[in-house]
Amino acid sequence: MFNVLAISQSDTEKLLDMETIIEKVELAYQLKYKEEASLWPMIFHEFEPGVADMDIKSGHLLGAGIFGLKLVSWFGPNAQKNLPQLVGTVMVYDASTGAPKAILSAEHITSMRTGAAGAIGAKYLARKDSKTLLMVGTGHQALYQIAATLMVMPKLEKVYLYNPRNIANAENFMSSIAQKLEDHFLVHYKDDAAKYEAYKEAFNVAFEVVTDIQQATKDSDIIITATPSHEPMIMTEWVKPGTHFSCVGADMGGKQEIDAAILANARIYTDDITQSINVGEVETAYKSGLVKESDIIAEIGEIIETGNKGRINDTDITVFDSTGIALQDLIAADYAIEQAKIRKMGTEFDL
Amino acid sequence: MFNVLAISQSDTEKLLDMETIIEKVELAYQLKYKEEASLWPMIFHEFEPGVADMDIKSGHLLGAGIFGLKLVSWFGPNAQKNLPQLVGTVMVYDASTGAPKAILSAEHITSMRTGAAGAIGAKYLARKDSKTLLMVGTGHQALYQIAATLMVMPKLEKVYLYNPRNIANAENFMSSIAQKLEDHFLVHYKDDAAKYEAYKEAFNVAFEVVTDIQQATKDSDIIITATPSHEPMIMTEWVKPGTHFSCVGADMGGKQEIDAAILANARIYTDDITQSINVGEVETAYKSGLVKESDIIAEIGEIIETGNKGRINDTDITVFDSTGIALQDLIAADYAIEQAKIRKMGTEFDL
Repeated sequence: MFNVLAISQSDTEKLLDMETIIEKVELAYQLKYKEEASLWPMIFHEFEPGVADMDIKSGHLLGAGIFGLKLVSWFGPNAQKNLPQLVGTVMVYDASTGAPKAILSAEHITSMRTGAAGAIGAKYLARKDSKTLLMVGTGHQALYQIAATLMVMPKLEKVYLYNPRNIANAENFMSSIAQKLEDHFLVHYKDDAAKYEAYKEAFNVAFEVVTDIQQATKDSDIIITATPSHEPMIMTEWVKPGTHFSCVGADMGGKQEIDAAILANARIYTDDITQSINVGEVETAYKSGLVKESDIIAEIGEIIETGNKGRINDTDITVFDSTGIALQDLIAADYAIEQAKIRKMGTEFDL
Repeated sequence: MFNVLAISQSDTEKLLDMETIIEKVELAYQLKYKEEASLWPMIFHEFEPGVADMDIKSGHLLGAGIFGLKLVSWFGPNAQKNLPQLVGTVMVYDASTGAPKAILSAEHITSMRTGAAGAIGAKYLARKDSKTLLMVGTGHQALYQIAATLMVMPKLEKVYLYNPRNIANAENFMSSIAQKLEDHFLVHYKDDAAKYEAYKEAFNVAFEVVTDIQQATKDSDIIITATPSHEPMIMTEWVKPGTHFSCVGADMGGKQEIDAAILANARIYTDDITQSINVGEVETAYKSGLVKESDIIAEIGEIIETGNKGRINDTDITVFDSTGIALQDLIAADYAIEQAKIRKMGTEFDL
């Protein structure tokens, strides 16, 4: 009855380039602000606390002609079964007919749209002359955050790498990052010499592993946190005026990466106010009364769409609480569908 | 990374037989009672009231090793586009790893599991010697209700057909029903002579179109309602002692098929108490105060599992409010997956 496309993880790696995903995620945020897109309630279920859970995030982007969902499972014991712990699928439907368009592996889409989100926070809220980036967390997501942020903030010269648990991890990450930026991001522009050279130049920064997070915080213009932390790692006394934070780690109740007092003194932005208060970086500060809902200046889509309400001066501390919303996944997935059709990739099947 | 199976609507028609679906839906109800299965909150979104909507029903059956969801869209304008108005997909995941197992067309699965539900209500709650069935509504679902109910209530001799809006519709339905029972239900037992003969005999009943719903109600032992009605079609004064109702039409706020006073005098059963009160046949009686939550005797799974709390005597009026739950879809879908693998059907793809 319906012809549907399946797009695998390796296909999504070939189809998605970060410059486009940044544009698409910005568009999703803008459509949400214009009420041409909206989120539906998140479903979360713990099969066994700390062992296995799953969530379903869904919504529509009528302004982009689609609706759908992402289901993500986390099964800890998969590590012993030689299976990925995190498994996800995205389903995209046509908002003019309700027909299924495609099913896609969600993992790489999630990595790309999350990297784009952190960078968009910096692009619209950090000082334009920012020269130093501190990346807190050197896990899977760090590469995407750094790549995307270097692409939108070409004046960056230095990237500090901090791993709160394991310095060797940060050192390993640093030893491979130049090659990974080439292989996973630059490669998409190999047929466009101007872009290739521009991004190659943007990626040509100094990386340095740091162990003194207090000093690194003092020395940084932009700080991105992408960890599973449940405790603040950066304290308010260390933060210099003008710093921008993109906090992408907190996406469920109890997670926290920076001192709640930083939020109390900052101009706060989010992708979705409801999610921020319930599960985002704002949650702890909100629940302790340090931050009220009305202290959140705006959702990021408003800044992108209107150009208003952003940073006022060079001494503001700004925080973008990126909780991660289904609209990012759906718009990135829809771009993968469009590209897969052009490039004759993916597997078609009838439903 | 993961090998996933796609099962089309025409495949589900070949793979699912009603006897097995009745068994599977009973098992889903039992697992829910034993807390080895549970529903997650339903998501419902109206794109444009009365024109287009969609819902996501989800849950797990850990007792059957699966979890997942069904997304169903209804787009009225599809009729002018030569597309089905109702479009659905089921996603089934492995509850031991979180890996996606299959994506299936939901339409035929929904028809089968809904027919099974109405019949299960009759099987466990109607008088065993029931001879007459009144089918209210002669739309798409009527065939499934009648087939399944005749299969589980072999003493039935007569089926009254009533269409509240259009008698010609009921007459057309009657003219084709014998052939449809053969083509869509008996066909699955053509290699099993004993079952084939038994169900052929069960289907060998008299069908009669009725226009006097009051008289037909008085003359019937079992009444199944499967309409999109928002008004009661059967009044309490017409109902004889001992009657069983399976109400399958009400699945969203405002729908109602029988007089709320019938519920006030009946032993009430449901597939899910929360859904009954919010969107089921019980909703109107509950909101008007005629029926309290504690008036619902039990969820049907308890009757099936324990044999307790059912009909007490031959004069009880019983009502099974079948709102339709994701667990029915998931367990039927998982059986389709199992059969598709055995019979080498469906399309495999990698995610």
